[in-house]
Formats: sequence, C-alpha cells, structure tokens
Amino acid sequence: MKTEHAFPAAALWRHLGAGPDVEPGLRAALAWVVRAPGKGVRMNLVQAMALRFGLSAGKAERLACAVEYFHLASLVLDDLPAMDDAQSRRGQPCVHRVHGEASAILAALTLINRGYALTDEALATAPARVRRAARGWVDRCLGLAGLVGGQARDLAFDPRTTTARDVARIAAAKTGALFALAVFLPAELGRPAPAERRALRALCVYWGQLYQLEDDVADALAAEAVAGKTTGRDRALGRPNLVHALGLPAARRRQARLAALLRRTLARLDELGGDRWQPLQAVFARPVAERSAA
Amino acid sequence: MKTEHAFPAAALWRHLGAGPDVEPGLRAALAWVVRAPGKGVRMNLVQAMALRFGLSAGKAERLACAVEYFHLASLVLDDLPAMDDAQSRRGQPCVHRVHGEASAILAALTLINRGYALTDEALATAPARVRRAARGWVDRCLGLAGLVGGQARDLAFDPRTTTARDVARIAAAKTGALFALAVFLPAELGRPAPAERRALRALCVYWGQLYQLEDDVADALAAEAVAGKTTGRDRALGRPNLVHALGLPAARRRQARLAALLRRTLARLDELGGDRWQPLQAVFARPVAERSAA
Repeated sequence: MKTEHAFPAAALWRHLGAGPDVEPGLRAALAWVVRAPGKGVRMNLVQAMALRFGLSAGKAERLACAVEYFHLASLVLDDLPAMDDAQSRRGQPCVHRVHGEASAILAALTLINRGYALTDEALATAPARVRRAARGWVDRCLGLAGLVGGQARDLAFDPRTTTARDVARIAAAKTGALFALAVFLPAELGRPAPAERRALRALCVYWGQLYQLEDDVADALAAEAVAGKTTGRDRALGRPNLVHALGLPAARRRQARLAALLRRTLARLDELGGDRWQPLQAVFARPVAERSAA
Repeated sequence: MKTEHAFPAAALWRHLGAGPDVEPGLRAALAWVVRAPGKGVRMNLVQAMALRFGLSAGKAERLACAVEYFHLASLVLDDLPAMDDAQSRRGQPCVHRVHGEASAILAALTLINRGYALTDEALATAPARVRRAARGWVDRCLGLAGLVGGQARDLAFDPRTTTARDVARIAAAKTGALFALAVFLPAELGRPAPAERRALRALCVYWGQLYQLEDDVADALAAEAVAGKTTGRDRALGRPNLVHALGLPAARRRQARLAALLRRTLARLDELGGDRWQPLQAVFARPVAERSAA
C-alpha cells in the first residue's frame, strides 16, 4: 500500500500554481500545509472512483486534489487561535504557529479558491446534470448545511445542555460533510441509481461517525505524541466528544456497531452495483486503524 | 439614484439561505455583514450588465449577490486582528468586534461558499465557453493572482524598499481584482470582441487604481467619523499608501490623470460596442465621490 505516498504531495503542490512570484510568506505557508498530506486515502478514493467513471488521469487527479484542498483548508482554519487554538496537526506544528495567522488564513483561502477551480476543470466536459449534481455537493458539504454550519455548532457547544444524540449530530454534520464530498463528488460521474444513492449516503453517515468516534477516543485517551495532533483539547475547550458523553465502554460498543453497519452497507453496494463501487470496497477492506490515520 | 438602496440588502440576506437552524452566533454575524451593503454600485453594475446580456432577473440578481459576497468576505477577513486589525467598517463596528473572530471567519466562508454556488446557478444555462471564461475570472481574481496574492503582498509590504510603482502594483492586484470580477463576470455573457476586452481590462486597472487612490487619500487625511472605516491605519501598520509614497499634490495629479484615462476608455467602449456597455457608462458618469462610497 506504499504506492499511495508517491501521489499526493507532489500533485497537491503542483495544482496550487504557487509560482515564485507569490509572496514568500504565503508560499511557505502553502508548502507547509501540503507537505504532510497524511496517507492520502481520501485522495486515492476520489481518484480511483473518478477513473472508474471515465475521467482522464489528469482530471481524476484534479478532482482528488480539489477534495483534499477543501479538507486541508478546513483543518487550517479549525486550528486557528479563534477556533480550536491547536498547536500541532499530523505531527507538525500548525501552520499558523510557524507562518503566522495571516498567512494561514490566506493559505486556506488559496486552497478553497483552487479547490473550486480544479473541481470545475475536472468536470468541465461532464454532462450538465452530473456537473450540477456534483457542484450541489460542494455547496451543501462546505456551507451552512455542512462544514461551516457544523463548525459553528461545534464552537457553540454547551456541555450542560447537549445530549449524546446532539454530539453525534454535530459530528456527522462536520466530519460526514467532508466524507460525503469525497464519495459523492466522484460518484455523481457514475450516475448512481436511487438505491445506490441511499446506500452511499448511509455509508457517509456511518463513516463520518466512526471516524469522528475514533478521533474522540484518541483525544480522550492518547498523549500528544501518539495522535500527532493536539489532544485532550475537546475536554479543555468543552467541545463535543462522544467518549465524554457516553463513557469509554459505550463508545467502544458504538464503534463496533458502526463498523458492522459500514460492512453491511458495503455489501449492499456490491449487490447493487458490483464492481462499480470497487474503489469504496478497497478503502473499507483495510483495518480501521490504518484508515483513521488518513 | 435612490432606487439602488432597495435592492441589495434583502437579496443579499435571502440568497445566503441562513435559515433558523443555523447556529445563532453565525447567523447573527451573517446578518451583520450584509445589513450595510454600501450604495450597491457594484451590485447594480453586475445586475444591469447581466440583464443587458440576456440573463433572467433571477439569475442577474444571483450573479450580483455572488460578486458582493466575494467582496464582503474579503472585507471581513481583511479586518481581522491578524490582518489589518480594523475597528470599524462602513460606519459600523467590524463583525469580529461584535460577533467574535470565529463567527466572522465562518461568515466569510459562508459568503465565499454561496458566492461560488450563485455564480454557478446564474451561469448554469450559459454556453460552455462563456461559463469557462467567467469561472476563470473568479479563479484569477480571488486567488494567488488576485485578491489573496495581493493581500499577502500588502501585509508583507516593507516601506523601506518599496517604490510608488510597487504600491500601485499591489493596489491594482487587490482592488483591481474585485473590479475586474464585477466587470468581466457579467461581460463574458456578451462575448466581448478582443478590442472590447482590452478596453474593459484597461478600465478595471484605472478604476481599481483610482478607487484605491481615493481610499489612500481618505486614509491619510480624514478622521474616522468621515470615512466610516478605521483610518490612518495604513501609516500605523506601515501599509502601502500612495499619498505617503508620492505626497498629496502628486497623488492629486495622478487622480486627475486616472480619471481622464477612465473617460477615454469609456469613450473607446462606446465607439466599439455602443449601448452594449451602457451599464458601465452609467456607473462612471457619476461623480467620483459618490462612486467611491460604494
């Protein structure tokens, strides 16, 4: 599985178009953000699905970079002092700690700008209906109904009045939104049937919740060196964390239940579309621990 | 000319889609940002040009809101403590001072997200070539080659090593980018001929420089109450300001020269396209002082 590492970082830098004329502080911030793109599971998923549904290699790479740019921008902004005030991310100091807040914000804006442009380029020759559906996902997943709305609720979280159900809903809105984007943006190219669409949507919800749950467990338990990002912050900030809301044993049971639901949904997709959804099967066939480091 | 005031504010709020389910702090920040949209000259220009080139009223309004959203987002982010650390804007306290930095950042992201979505909706049925050209302007004007890149250079400005020429270049990149968007996004619908395109481009450069120059004069001279935004900050922050670089008399001469170049370019457009460019003529026929408060 080591082939994954070759693809993301170089492509992520190249498609930014950050030439030598870009102000050096901003250019350095951009290089910092894209130099540690994780294992690239998300990018590989988008790329594989896009190829499966007929995009050229160049366009599939652009779509994969677009999704990763949106994701990286959300991480950069979430880590800011005014938001989570995080110190480290993926084992590195956060970009605002190294290159300043202004450059971090401008880097995030650059990533968002390029994300939209690359999405456009990737889908330029797709049928109008596909393009419209795909751009609808970008709108919903990133905006008030998705990432931005979820982050606002996350920051406004009041531990005294919030139930485990609320916590799950907030997590699904935020984490699920980026998964939905990684799944549906390329999936729309395959014009999924209504039943496939329902299964894909369920997959995103389960995946998002499971991913967030693993993150919560890591935050509640692990030392900073292990998780590679600032940990224990959820409690310190009074932020939603299912481990705090449910306790560890119940969180573990929920984890097992979500994993089972994921497997069942994948089996359903296999039944409905056969090898159309093989790229998704490939991602979920791997151990959870490996996936969650993506 | 008072009819302008009716249109912008209600449309700007409506197209955000910020329903009652949106987290109250973010919703309040959004309402704050769009409640004082200036005189709406930019929005009226985009709307008038879009109508002139055949968009429906609904789509023309969407395109106008999209351009204004991008503009408002840039103002909100520029005013942040990490950027210009401004206190007031358009006679109101800045949104981050009233609703907090986190809500301000999320409001800006919402505006950007909706800006892209509305651009898409407005151009959905335009020919592929027009759509591609229009989206190219969004990419260039907002990204590293435009607003974001210009803001980075603005913040990195070093008064000891920077010439009046540099100052003009930085101003053109930032201010000119948003004007270019307001002009070219709707103009692409009219498929301008190469000579018209050159004239429109010149118009954007002159307009951007003139607008920025007026801003610089206001910053250098006016009291806060007069300009309606935090003034004298350019000098305090060591930011590029042509009045400081050239002195006031030279700045005034430059202002007159730019105004003459603007008039000449408008005459050229009239010669080339006749009433095709009437909406632009209408904007520039007004006194500069009225325009610059837009």
